[in-house]
Amino acid sequence: MDEDLAEITLSAERLYKGKIIDLELSEVRLPNGRTARREAVRHPGGAAVLLVKDGMVLMERQFRFPYGKVIWEIPAGKLNSGEDPCSAALRELEEETGWRAKKLERLAEIYPSPGYTDEIIYIFFATEAEFSRQHPDDDEFVNCRFIDIDECIAMCENGEISDAKTLVALYKYVYDRNKKKGP
Amino acid sequence: MDEDLAEITLSAERLYKGKIIDLELSEVRLPNGRTARREAVRHPGGAAVLLVKDGMVLMERQFRFPYGKVIWEIPAGKLNSGEDPCSAALRELEEETGWRAKKLERLAEIYPSPGYTDEIIYIFFATEAEFSRQHPDDDEFVNCRFIDIDECIAMCENGEISDAKTLVALYKYVYDRNKKKGP
Repeated sequence: MDEDLAEITLSAERLYKGKIIDLELSEVRLPNGRTARREAVRHPGGAAVLLVKDGMVLMERQFRFPYGKVIWEIPAGKLNSGEDPCSAALRELEEETGWRAKKLERLAEIYPSPGYTDEIIYIFFATEAEFSRQHPDDDEFVNCRFIDIDECIAMCENGEISDAKTLVALYKYVYDRNKKKGP
Repeated sequence: MDEDLAEITLSAERLYKGKIIDLELSEVRLPNGRTARREAVRHPGGAAVLLVKDGMVLMERQFRFPYGKVIWEIPAGKLNSGEDPCSAALRELEEETGWRAKKLERLAEIYPSPGYTDEIIYIFFATEAEFSRQHPDDDEFVNCRFIDIDECIAMCENGEISDAKTLVALYKYVYDRNKKKGP
């Protein structure tokens, strides 16, 4: 279905090759036969972890340059070249927070902003975990703390948490928990 | 709190000025006194609408160039220069779907991928709506249909819906609905 919607790429030019993202400008053939330009950010993909321990969620405070402020997020990072999302999730969790998870389950895969980026964020759910030691990247500064799951949801509801992957992870976790409980 | 995390911008250079996004490369002073480079996509912000009518959600099929495929999303679009998010939401809803909402409520504001973009997506909840006529942009092709809210949630759970704003809107809607019902 929806074959009437597809665009055909006529040409693509890389305008920028960066550390986290590349930028491409393409020309496409539209469904009506006309042409248009499309801007696309190319990103290797990200992995994120919702770690829940005794009803508490491991949350991070991190300064995010594009917004110029510190925000709340679950631990996450970008995939290295050729790295599978599960390994990246375990690696980023340990690097940023010092927590080593023994078991990961797939929670969701999300497209953060499909109008201009090809990033996929793979979100995992971790339960069994033990503390090892934090060793973040040279240019990464992160404060971690455990917050009660219901307080996290209250922070989603009142707008304190705005990060998309964190909102999806928390609302989906609560949805699944309520479903298990039954009506 | 978390003053220890802030980065100070030393210089910023615009590398690209585009139709939907701009790209900036900046140099920052890190909390440890060293410097680092930061890539930032500048975006005017987006507005999205969860329209629920008789238990059905207005969903769209749209080809998304960065992923090279058609995906499910709630109606959304970018803010025009100086436009307030609520007006943009009403305008995009009507342009893309032909539905005119009489009443909007704030549902959430989300940061799609805070590592490299400054986009904010303002999500609204619309109830009272009537059909007018569809008049999408020249380069925009969209198929709309109403889908039962519980089927939408099933599509979130099985991975058919991956768009972040749509996931947040649907899971939050169900969370709020369950909360109203009580335990």
